[in-house]
Amino acid sequence: MSIRKRRASSPQVEQVAGNGLLNRRALLRGGAVVAGAMTSSGALTGAAAEPLQNDPWSLERGLVVPAYQVPSRFEKDVVRTLSNPNNEFRNSHARTPHQLLQGAITPNGLFFSICHSALPDIDPAQHKLVIHGLVKQPLVYTLDSLSRYPMVTRTHFLECSGNSAPMFSSEPLQVTAQAIHGLVSNAEWTGVLLSTLLEETGIDPKATWLLAEGADAPSLHRSVPIKKALDDAMIALYQNGERIQPGNGYPMRLLLPGYQGNMNVKYVRRIKLIDQPAMSFFESKTYSQILPTGKMWLFHFTQEVKSFITHPSFGHALQGPGFYEISGVAYSGNGRISKVMVSADGGKSWAQAALQEPVMPKAFVRFRMPWRWDGQPAVLQSRAFDEAGNVQPTRAEFVAARGQTDKPLTTPLAFPNQHYNSITSWGIDSKGEIKHVYA
Amino acid sequence: MSIRKRRASSPQVEQVAGNGLLNRRALLRGGAVVAGAMTSSGALTGAAAEPLQNDPWSLERGLVVPAYQVPSRFEKDVVRTLSNPNNEFRNSHARTPHQLLQGAITPNGLFFSICHSALPDIDPAQHKLVIHGLVKQPLVYTLDSLSRYPMVTRTHFLECSGNSAPMFSSEPLQVTAQAIHGLVSNAEWTGVLLSTLLEETGIDPKATWLLAEGADAPSLHRSVPIKKALDDAMIALYQNGERIQPGNGYPMRLLLPGYQGNMNVKYVRRIKLIDQPAMSFFESKTYSQILPTGKMWLFHFTQEVKSFITHPSFGHALQGPGFYEISGVAYSGNGRISKVMVSADGGKSWAQAALQEPVMPKAFVRFRMPWRWDGQPAVLQSRAFDEAGNVQPTRAEFVAARGQTDKPLTTPLAFPNQHYNSITSWGIDSKGEIKHVYA
Repeated sequence: MSIRKRRASSPQVEQVAGNGLLNRRALLRGGAVVAGAMTSSGALTGAAAEPLQNDPWSLERGLVVPAYQVPSRFEKDVVRTLSNPNNEFRNSHARTPHQLLQGAITPNGLFFSICHSALPDIDPAQHKLVIHGLVKQPLVYTLDSLSRYPMVTRTHFLECSGNSAPMFSSEPLQVTAQAIHGLVSNAEWTGVLLSTLLEETGIDPKATWLLAEGADAPSLHRSVPIKKALDDAMIALYQNGERIQPGNGYPMRLLLPGYQGNMNVKYVRRIKLIDQPAMSFFESKTYSQILPTGKMWLFHFTQEVKSFITHPSFGHALQGPGFYEISGVAYSGNGRISKVMVSADGGKSWAQAALQEPVMPKAFVRFRMPWRWDGQPAVLQSRAFDEAGNVQPTRAEFVAARGQTDKPLTTPLAFPNQHYNSITSWGIDSKGEIKHVYA
Repeated sequence: MSIRKRRASSPQVEQVAGNGLLNRRALLRGGAVVAGAMTSSGALTGAAAEPLQNDPWSLERGLVVPAYQVPSRFEKDVVRTLSNPNNEFRNSHARTPHQLLQGAITPNGLFFSICHSALPDIDPAQHKLVIHGLVKQPLVYTLDSLSRYPMVTRTHFLECSGNSAPMFSSEPLQVTAQAIHGLVSNAEWTGVLLSTLLEETGIDPKATWLLAEGADAPSLHRSVPIKKALDDAMIALYQNGERIQPGNGYPMRLLLPGYQGNMNVKYVRRIKLIDQPAMSFFESKTYSQILPTGKMWLFHFTQEVKSFITHPSFGHALQGPGFYEISGVAYSGNGRISKVMVSADGGKSWAQAALQEPVMPKAFVRFRMPWRWDGQPAVLQSRAFDEAGNVQPTRAEFVAARGQTDKPLTTPLAFPNQHYNSITSWGIDSKGEIKHVYA
């Protein structure tokens, strides 16, 4: 069989913004235009010198099929990076490798987690959830009893409010999207709406907040407005179809769609209805943000509109000029993403990306933009907009309002480290090498 | 803290079909009505005799956070059942435990797989996909080169055409939904549309079919109409965000949404455009269905409309009268599910189930129905309808047309074993025990 390099001439492809961004409708009407864009460089397809032949694995019986399957051994580097692999007496962070993933769902094995102790080894048959305080009838729920309640299934992102904090640095850190943005992930959650359980316990009219507490060693606890509890809060029991992972709250967690990660109390064992916030350590210190004005963001819950490009990004390298697809994820704690704009010239010009359907509220949406790289330096950016009218800020706008880590905000020294959501920029040089830049 | 049993009287809950099916809008407007239904039995909530106390895991640091997380050790029985755990020289089936899952996504660890040999241990850097035959320019693709192409992300079920074959048995087998229906799963797939690659190779007008071949030991190969290739066929590279699992085609597979599983050739290494079907072993014998008329279903590709109840189902037991949620999955290779009807009286009366949004074409949709069990015998059924107008048949209708395993269809003996899609019935006795029944 003869296979040869294609040597087609480049057809006309409509450029819609600077540095080679192409009409996104090219993606939607199939490959015709894009294929032309690709083969104009001749780089995407190779010649096969030899006839078809069997590779070694086509001549062997193969490996045993396991009861619970895991990725190929060749994917051993597609893992979460760990901040505390030896389980020392401090927090543990496990970050999602966004630069190696695609689509919108984060697989359970790679869903980020933060533990303020380590993983509690909970026996689900013994675990109980108590709802008490300002209720008409305090009640106890087990995993078994919850299995009979009406459930809902919804796809939502979950993000640590400290995600992307490396971008508070005054110089751009040369690290992957995983290191910068790895504390956000997205899954399909199934569980019982908290409102269903509160209908059963009844609510004393004096109740305006609830205190949710986990069964982990630090008993992580946070105050949540009753309004959120009655809106879309869920006692989540399943994550992407199976029981929640140990790092994500097994056997049950509070899910507060769009709210900062730690409020989505894992291993939830107690919900106490109260008439004012509890002012717990986790809300009055750890997860409150001091501002350059000296004031503090207290009870700032919502993870604001955000996006970042995963392909290409730091850790990848472009293999010569020609066609590439730019893609990434966008999300907002305020609802649906309304559009994502992409720039290849550091924000001078923008074009609207294609969004993967269905676009769901408070969930990742994958965006895609066709791009023909001419081999010259370029700066890739994405900027997300949500249906509530919020716009992802530029880095300059963001640090002007919120500070940088080389400028302490208070004495004793406090630095900004929460709710970072500016645009991320990937700089590409003429060799195709990719750096994290501020632009 | 005092916690006591709730002793509320039962409010009025609208019954919409026989044997206690309740108005499904109860699910949508929160717990008010349903909670009343639940507590009318007093069975769902329990008393806590003792004050809140710490369980052992709340007093320990906990387990180390792993780089790739897997379910809790307490979930060790939530695994695929294996037909060939010792990797003997025959096919291997691994079935999804639907009765233990929720939502619509099947997690990668539990996605079903069938291997005609075992798992090929493919080095993705060496694997190639060749597109040749009746094309204008034969081309070779690697995982690296495909990473630059425009991708799409779509959620689709995948089902073996032999799924549910245990229901051809003339007596209902007393086995789980996993044993009966475990050869279907649902995932978010990301990859390159085959049409994009065929635009690049060009298509000789004489080409009407393609032959797709895998790199596994049996070189599994199937003929596919070009029309399907240009519609929604995909070279899938990612499954629920991460690289495809070894049992599901790593590093790339052909995805033909809605078509029988084996045509979605795993480990795809070759696509040859041809002017008639190749009449391979896998299409002319293994995966063709002989009918009672003596004729054969040759090139019958589509997995027809289907549903089954997963909760409650065989392997569960009802814990006394009162409220339960009936739920399950529905899907059709013809497009979207338009509605699912549920019966608690063996098909005498029906009520329409709530469908989990978004309802996507050729994908699982989770359906839910509130139900108050009165403690008397009941037979639960679900019946799916698709947007193309297809209706899931009753078992009597189905076996009249397609046969049963105790009646050979031909001499030499051939039995029906393909494309089974009738209604499944779970019979519940007054003790709450659940059997598989034909009703």
